[in-house]
Amino acid sequence: MGKVRSSLSVSIDGFVGSVEEQAWDDHNRVHGWAYDLKAFNEQQGMAGGRDGADSDVLVERNSGIGAYVMGRTMFDFGDEPWGAEPPFHAPVFVLTSRLRDVDVREGGTSFTFVTDGIASAIKLAKEAAGDEDVFISGGASPVKQAFSAGLLDEFQMHVVPVLLGTGVRMFDDVDLRGVGLERTQAVVGDTVTHLTYRVAPEAAQ
Amino acid sequence: MGKVRSSLSVSIDGFVGSVEEQAWDDHNRVHGWAYDLKAFNEQQGMAGGRDGADSDVLVERNSGIGAYVMGRTMFDFGDEPWGAEPPFHAPVFVLTSRLRDVDVREGGTSFTFVTDGIASAIKLAKEAAGDEDVFISGGASPVKQAFSAGLLDEFQMHVVPVLLGTGVRMFDDVDLRGVGLERTQAVVGDTVTHLTYRVAPEAAQ
Repeated sequence: MGKVRSSLSVSIDGFVGSVEEQAWDDHNRVHGWAYDLKAFNEQQGMAGGRDGADSDVLVERNSGIGAYVMGRTMFDFGDEPWGAEPPFHAPVFVLTSRLRDVDVREGGTSFTFVTDGIASAIKLAKEAAGDEDVFISGGASPVKQAFSAGLLDEFQMHVVPVLLGTGVRMFDDVDLRGVGLERTQAVVGDTVTHLTYRVAPEAAQ
Repeated sequence: MGKVRSSLSVSIDGFVGSVEEQAWDDHNRVHGWAYDLKAFNEQQGMAGGRDGADSDVLVERNSGIGAYVMGRTMFDFGDEPWGAEPPFHAPVFVLTSRLRDVDVREGGTSFTFVTDGIASAIKLAKEAAGDEDVFISGGASPVKQAFSAGLLDEFQMHVVPVLLGTGVRMFDDVDLRGVGLERTQAVVGDTVTHLTYRVAPEAAQ
């Protein structure tokens, strides 16, 4: 049985991105560390790129995933650029309020639209993933929902040395009190620090 | 000429403590990692404690400091427990709205009350520190003010694996856009990850 895991890139002041969809600049300041990596390019079917610890983190993050869960915003955002052969190569369960038919693409990716919430999406993804992991792709909202529902086993935080000032906070409006975290890995990348935590009921302190 | 530096302990969800002063439990969940350390005990004039990377971080943090800047809340909080010989052994400049006489204690600690803001307090502290560093002790508010005024040279973040859900956010209501951070050190402690950043105008990205 695989794990349910996720990762978010976060600014030093705790933001995962901008509130305005148009704010590409902010988005890129938080997420841009990955865009020149060898592992990122490979995922998009391209060669070249920056090698090293950051790229290794991405390779490890993308390995052993049997199914994805994704928020509607991220799907809408990526749908066109991903094209005929999206970079998932696995079933993707998209949280949405509007039921649609399953959308099967090339290379093993399919998008299944789930209208009854995060627990249901994770249950379907686990069944599809078999012994492999379920990865919650983002954005922050589905990760927060999974965390809050006690359905996340592992959380990775990419601490990016930028300050946004405003934006979408990583864990806003959710009380994760009682959720414990045990750091299982810390990787010091070129500029970003990658911290992985096992999620478990908090030990008495 | 020394640096102006500071450090804050922060939960995974970005809080430095509780909004309610009584919430000792939350305070200790964020700051408790330091309380059993050898270096912390030594600072209080006691022996024993946990040795290793976390303790080394504290030793380094407390070294080479010629003067402190402190918020009024922290002063009120510590005034009594610190007693006749507070653990600073250097001049401390306390931000407050109410002027008081300089309060000279044993062991080299003095408290000077500054009523005209962070820039003035840092200026006085720099003069007192000479070639040594100025350390902004906290809480989060004076650190934020120094950051925002462009007066901070180095910022250390102790990333503590707890989730508070609510509380005082590290950098709330302050736009630090344009402030750049370059990670200069990353120390993986027993449970806490210590990240140090040089503050500089943000490089074009």
